[in-house]
Amino acid sequence: MSLWAGRFKEDTNSLAKEFTSSISLDKKLYFYDIQGSIAHIKMLVKCKIVAENEAERIIKTLNSINEEIKRRKINLSGKEDIHMAIEEELIKREGKIGEKLHTARSRNDQIALDERLYLREKIEDIENLILEFQGTLLKLAEKNKTAILPGYTHLQYAQPLFFSHYILAYFWMAQRDRDRLGDCYKRVNVMPLGVGALAGTSLPIDRDYVAKLLKFPRITENSVDTVSDRDYIIEFLACLCLLMMHLSRLCEDLILFSSPALSFIEISDAFTTGSSLMPQKKNPDVLELIRGKTGRVYGALISLLTTMKALPLSYNRDMQEDKFALFQSTQEVERSLRICTLMLNNLRINREQMEKKAKEGFFAATDLVEYLVERGIPFRKAHQIVGKMVRYCLEKRKKFQGLTIKEYQSFSPIFEAGVKQRINLKRCVENKESSGGTGKKSVEKQIKLAKEILKK
Amino acid sequence: MSLWAGRFKEDTNSLAKEFTSSISLDKKLYFYDIQGSIAHIKMLVKCKIVAENEAERIIKTLNSINEEIKRRKINLSGKEDIHMAIEEELIKREGKIGEKLHTARSRNDQIALDERLYLREKIEDIENLILEFQGTLLKLAEKNKTAILPGYTHLQYAQPLFFSHYILAYFWMAQRDRDRLGDCYKRVNVMPLGVGALAGTSLPIDRDYVAKLLKFPRITENSVDTVSDRDYIIEFLACLCLLMMHLSRLCEDLILFSSPALSFIEISDAFTTGSSLMPQKKNPDVLELIRGKTGRVYGALISLLTTMKALPLSYNRDMQEDKFALFQSTQEVERSLRICTLMLNNLRINREQMEKKAKEGFFAATDLVEYLVERGIPFRKAHQIVGKMVRYCLEKRKKFQGLTIKEYQSFSPIFEAGVKQRINLKRCVENKESSGGTGKKSVEKQIKLAKEILKK
Amino acid sequence: MSLWAGRFKEDTNSLAKEFTSSISLDKKLYFYDIQGSIAHIKMLVKCKIVAENEAERIIKTLNSINEEIKRRKINLSGKEDIHMAIEEELIKREGKIGEKLHTARSRNDQIALDERLYLREKIEDIENLILEFQGTLLKLAEKNKTAILPGYTHLQYAQPLFFSHYILAYFWMAQRDRDRLGDCYKRVNVMPLGVGALAGTSLPIDRDYVAKLLKFPRITENSVDTVSDRDYIIEFLACLCLLMMHLSRLCEDLILFSSPALSFIEISDAFTTGSSLMPQKKNPDVLELIRGKTGRVYGALISLLTTMKALPLSYNRDMQEDKFALFQSTQEVERSLRICTLMLNNLRINREQMEKKAKEGFFAATDLVEYLVERGIPFRKAHQIVGKMVRYCLEKRKKFQGLTIKEYQSFSPIFEAGVKQRINLKRCVENKESSGGTGKKSVEKQIKLAKEILKK
Amino acid sequence: MSLWAGRFKEDTNSLAKEFTSSISLDKKLYFYDIQGSIAHIKMLVKCKIVAENEAERIIKTLNSINEEIKRRKINLSGKEDIHMAIEEELIKREGKIGEKLHTARSRNDQIALDERLYLREKIEDIENLILEFQGTLLKLAEKNKTAILPGYTHLQYAQPLFFSHYILAYFWMAQRDRDRLGDCYKRVNVMPLGVGALAGTSLPIDRDYVAKLLKFPRITENSVDTVSDRDYIIEFLACLCLLMMHLSRLCEDLILFSSPALSFIEISDAFTTGSSLMPQKKNPDVLELIRGKTGRVYGALISLLTTMKALPLSYNRDMQEDKFALFQSTQEVERSLRICTLMLNNLRINREQMEKKAKEGFFAATDLVEYLVERGIPFRKAHQIVGKMVRYCLEKRKKFQGLTIKEYQSFSPIFEAGVKQRINLKRCVENKESSGGTGKKSVEKQIKLAKEILKK
Repeated sequence: MSLWAGRFKEDTNSLAKEFTSSISLDKKLYFYDIQGSIAHIKMLVKCKIVAENEAERIIKTLNSINEEIKRRKINLSGKEDIHMAIEEELIKREGKIGEKLHTARSRNDQIALDERLYLREKIEDIENLILEFQGTLLKLAEKNKTAILPGYTHLQYAQPLFFSHYILAYFWMAQRDRDRLGDCYKRVNVMPLGVGALAGTSLPIDRDYVAKLLKFPRITENSVDTVSDRDYIIEFLACLCLLMMHLSRLCEDLILFSSPALSFIEISDAFTTGSSLMPQKKNPDVLELIRGKTGRVYGALISLLTTMKALPLSYNRDMQEDKFALFQSTQEVERSLRICTLMLNNLRINREQMEKKAKEGFFAATDLVEYLVERGIPFRKAHQIVGKMVRYCLEKRKKFQGLTIKEYQSFSPIFEAGVKQRINLKRCVENKESSGGTGKKSVEKQIKLAKEILKK
Repeated sequence: MSLWAGRFKEDTNSLAKEFTSSISLDKKLYFYDIQGSIAHIKMLVKCKIVAENEAERIIKTLNSINEEIKRRKINLSGKEDIHMAIEEELIKREGKIGEKLHTARSRNDQIALDERLYLREKIEDIENLILEFQGTLLKLAEKNKTAILPGYTHLQYAQPLFFSHYILAYFWMAQRDRDRLGDCYKRVNVMPLGVGALAGTSLPIDRDYVAKLLKFPRITENSVDTVSDRDYIIEFLACLCLLMMHLSRLCEDLILFSSPALSFIEISDAFTTGSSLMPQKKNPDVLELIRGKTGRVYGALISLLTTMKALPLSYNRDMQEDKFALFQSTQEVERSLRICTLMLNNLRINREQMEKKAKEGFFAATDLVEYLVERGIPFRKAHQIVGKMVRYCLEKRKKFQGLTIKEYQSFSPIFEAGVKQRINLKRCVENKESSGGTGKKSVEKQIKLAKEILKK
Repeated sequence: MSLWAGRFKEDTNSLAKEFTSSISLDKKLYFYDIQGSIAHIKMLVKCKIVAENEAERIIKTLNSINEEIKRRKINLSGKEDIHMAIEEELIKREGKIGEKLHTARSRNDQIALDERLYLREKIEDIENLILEFQGTLLKLAEKNKTAILPGYTHLQYAQPLFFSHYILAYFWMAQRDRDRLGDCYKRVNVMPLGVGALAGTSLPIDRDYVAKLLKFPRITENSVDTVSDRDYIIEFLACLCLLMMHLSRLCEDLILFSSPALSFIEISDAFTTGSSLMPQKKNPDVLELIRGKTGRVYGALISLLTTMKALPLSYNRDMQEDKFALFQSTQEVERSLRICTLMLNNLRINREQMEKKAKEGFFAATDLVEYLVERGIPFRKAHQIVGKMVRYCLEKRKKFQGLTIKEYQSFSPIFEAGVKQRINLKRCVENKESSGGTGKKSVEKQIKLAKEILKK
Repeated sequence: MSLWAGRFKEDTNSLAKEFTSSISLDKKLYFYDIQGSIAHIKMLVKCKIVAENEAERIIKTLNSINEEIKRRKINLSGKEDIHMAIEEELIKREGKIGEKLHTARSRNDQIALDERLYLREKIEDIENLILEFQGTLLKLAEKNKTAILPGYTHLQYAQPLFFSHYILAYFWMAQRDRDRLGDCYKRVNVMPLGVGALAGTSLPIDRDYVAKLLKFPRITENSVDTVSDRDYIIEFLACLCLLMMHLSRLCEDLILFSSPALSFIEISDAFTTGSSLMPQKKNPDVLELIRGKTGRVYGALISLLTTMKALPLSYNRDMQEDKFALFQSTQEVERSLRICTLMLNNLRINREQMEKKAKEGFFAATDLVEYLVERGIPFRKAHQIVGKMVRYCLEKRKKFQGLTIKEYQSFSPIFEAGVKQRINLKRCVENKESSGGTGKKSVEKQIKLAKEILKK
């Protein structure tokens, strides 16, 4: 018989019971549920609603229950949810005293508390994983500071870059991910307990005290909103979507870079797998799986947005679906970040190959334009001149470096003898010294700044 | 050491191994995998690639493995995937002979086969669950054929309906769901095995024979397409999205109908739950959860569409994510359909209350318009006349039935004494005898047709 | 001939030209594009790349072009994009001088600047619209401070609430929406111009000066990241999704409240529409459309997340699709907020009807539990006692108020004569004085706080 | 004053009017709306509800209105929707007679008819565009039947393929797209008119006659379902999502193939664009934009699924949002298909380069395994042998073709002198003669079958 069954004539249908049960998912929250209950009972003592000695027994028993669930000594299967499971266990052990725990609260605010406690921890975990990921990117950048990579737009050669500069692009994406999670944290970090089912309570409770015990800087302002709200999960999932989108781009790049046509990098055997049919294969499965899991996290976001759409206030049982989306995404993001960092730590960079490919195409075209601009040719005019040179080279199967100075001057008399030095590969990269550019000092400045950020 | 590890120097990192493993999900496919292997080995015998006595031993052992997995006697955890797990087990038991099983196939085509076999069965299961759901709707319609329900548009009273007609609307939605699944089945029911990793094989195999053994009417036409394709899952998920959308609308209606302000229906205690705080509560949790799970199925569709977007041909490991989306959705849809049907079987209909509410508002307004139209007033004019009558009634706090014939005639001289009989509630419903309308004969025709459909 | 066509032999196919053109969408950005160009040319002067008198002519002409586009005097159709359209117009008017404008920038950073300028303004616009919306909610709360509404969970009566408390729930949701937009703004408000196509430039530019001119507090750190990044739009869309989700819930509530079965509110005729067929109808179309548009904004978010998934660095043309998602959503959110606020300003509240319905059900059940708890009965025991009372009342068709004190005491001897005063409707609402509860002082505190927030 | 305004006291707020108006979108449906009206009025004549001469005038005027809208001679802006706009225009011209048109129908069934007529045509259009696309793929396959392409899995070399076989993979995807659209068509092709607002009508109409006039094979079965249903659009959008997913994969492949590292293909200048900054660039913008537009179509699907989720029956104004999703997606899919086909028609294939790359890696590894299997080595053993050969070659920087027969035999004594002939590139492709494989005859069979399909 359920704890809430006083008014019911028929017992819940067994299929319905199984269908509505959330224990298979929310058992993950037992620790947070118990911490919340302990803070709650302490507050009830402070407010003289429950006696101190009763509270002590409740706390002791809750701690035992926590320990036993951890060691899998309590069978949770078949329970309605983690809140009921723990309260039932408490009442089984402590009788009437245990029956006092649920005073002035409801499962509606209790689950919100559990989820917020869980999320606070998970945001911190993910922030730390991002930090490690950033640290690895930074190390990779430093180790390969002057390796030259062909930079792409539209997957066509664009301009050469320092590999360090390229890889730091992901550092800044990750930095935004941490920023966003930090902002999300502020909205997660608000204490919901004590709003009852939706209306508050007439009992003289002290919600601020619970907040203090659980280290929340503030409490929610409106009881109806509190039990109806899942913004904190949706915002978190949106942050994860952006994070996974970034990882999917990194994986795409690394899959391309490790493809035989480029061979810029080699992923360690330890992070690839073979084929059951083709013995020569070495596949970047880890990268592909991370890229594929992006779909799962997007799906989680859209699933919870859908579930919450047009729900009337206040609590509705639909909201129970939040846990599936939340737990799945959190787990996959944590796994993806961890393995991605590990894989990056084991990456081999093939500098010669990168540099070789960086020399293909007309990597110096923009530098030639800038050369002309420096000598007073209007930019758009300079762009046309170099455009014609490209066409000429394509027809003659030549490269800029292979043209004679006469040929140069046939396109513009401005060209001088030194032009070819000006456009050698290394110089084309190093001289992009505008702020945020791929130039040498510019990248060094970036690395310095990145280091400072990680130190904080 | 992995079966494919011949060319590798380093062993797979343990985290990478766990990350890339799909066994926790695809173990669900063991039965289909083994059926596929048995058909495959039979074909290899027919094509003289494997000896008959070898095949017999392989088949016998595969059947034992099947039985043992079913009884959970084989520990699958830690394996890379279900294909490797079974092949390894076979080789462990049968040595060299077992090593012949994977001839002329790859995991790329094997997983496609397993999934298609699984999907065939699941589509049939879901079609059957829809059939039961339709049967229950039909029974409900027959049992309450003449109960009168206020029909809504925009959640405002529109015109009265027979409850049977209203509930049959869901019958036709479900019918489309079955139609769609049937069409999807045609595209699922195509045999993929024997295309190898992507190119086919030089061995003289007979794919049509495998198709025959596994009761597929045809085989896939192109090996590259075959291993790159997950259309069959995405189309299936799209079918499930529409199905869940329909269930979400039914649940929404039933939640409204069972809300205290309407009380048109009562959901059996067995399908509701109470509140941990408010002892008077009886909540339609089952309905809310079905409605909420719509989000999960939408999310699954978008997750797989995302994963497949812009994947280069042919197979990529990203595609492994399909199973999560597929299994989750299938399970939740099956559970939702089953419980929804059961709940409908236990629904109490409150005819008096429905009829009472159906009389509110100006339910006969459209009938008055039609009354005038029958007497030659142009429709748009008639609409205006009745519009003014509504406004008059609102101001005078009267109803159509309460107006005197004089008052009627003050709006149009066309009104005759009999008008009030014409617009009594029952008649307003019964006389909508246009095809597909809520009229009495029209509903009976619908019920007859629905019965014939279910008989097939 | 295109400005970039120097190296091309064939002209762009006319269908391809039309397909790749973005002018139909990005013409909306002309103003921001021109502001950006003016700041850019001023910087080029400061850095001695362009002469002051040339810059003056360019600025003057750009201002004229801005004015003429505003007055629709320049035909933009057929152009590739707004950047090219303006530059071409400039060159047409200023010749060689105009050809200098594009020095040290690319369309890749230019579009990022335009979008960020646009977004800064739009975030401010939407924040202001939310402020007005919050102001209206607050006014509505103050005007109806003591109106009593039945509070729902699961669309079943739960506990009575002050209408003001209920409507303030939306105030706090909106407050989170503003908070989130404010956080998003920080990441939008970063200056991207001057990173070139992807690598930076060798010309001695000063990006910080451009930032200063355009009032950006900082510049982007990495050129590759800068041109590859659309996080700022996706995060903005995620904020809008949550905002629309909130509006969809408000609309759902108001649709329910204005449905004939409840009639808690009346939406002004000015915000409803009629039926082409049923003359009595008055439909809450505005509310339904806002609710429906939630789908459009969710779709925009998923569309851009999809587009960006697994794009290799750096810029790819796929990213051009961002504008469709961005402009559509922004427009619909602005329209929805504006009309929603206006509609709320014209809402009529039906206090009597609300109060009548609030008395239905066993609204005081939780208060009875609290009554018992106050007198020392353990909560869970008290819950059971009241649960049995509810069942007794249902069987006897009685209400709490209708029971004799003897009947009360038959459930628990603790009940005393005063119990019925304790559970009158008004008192049940007023006494929920826990922080954030629906109690009188608690709501007043909320209103005070809300006012302070709006004043800032 | 609106045609439905009889009962209203206040006029619609101008902002609300603009907000609820759908004319900017649904004006696209004018032609279908008028065809529907003409069929409707003919039926009213047949059923003796309207006189023949009146109908003739109505039809004549409707035809004029159609012509004038086509020539943009009627100003539609400011109207509520296309139905009202046309009816008002008719009444303006024909007075009382025009007022008869809307007899026995409502906008709820009228819009369903318009959309179904539109969709029938659009499905046919898209089917034809797919046919052309398939025709182009087939031509490309025939023209390059024996060009050899490195086949990829995981973007790593897997096995060589005929280019024709690879490109035909897309033929079969497109074939499934047409199949699915054909199945969708069956459910679109059902006549909805005559169900009124939701209940049917008491007037003696003949819906089957309307169906016959408009060439629908059957009519909808239930009036409530008919006006609540948007399955036909959602199913259509799901078909388009799969289609765009296929195009996104083709574009991804072609972007890779045209990247400088591969240079397998060259996209005609006419379908590429340049850079405003980098004069050497030639970017596959058309391909990228198609790939990017996949997001837009996914977004449309999710937007309508969201909008329809949990809508109570029957019609709600939220459903008006369907048109935005429908029209946008249809337009973008048509444009994408058209330009993609054109681009393929102008593709240059670089056979030498493909073949050169196909020889890289250990393309013959699987053939070596099959060689051993043919000679009695169990597959898994053979796989290991060749795996070790690959590792040996990698260490010695050799290729299979470069090993001596002695070296071969050091891995297995089974190897014979002829092994190297067996594994030359051409033979490795040609001999995959299993059904659906890349073998020569197998591809010829495919081409033959594809031709037959297109002929139908």
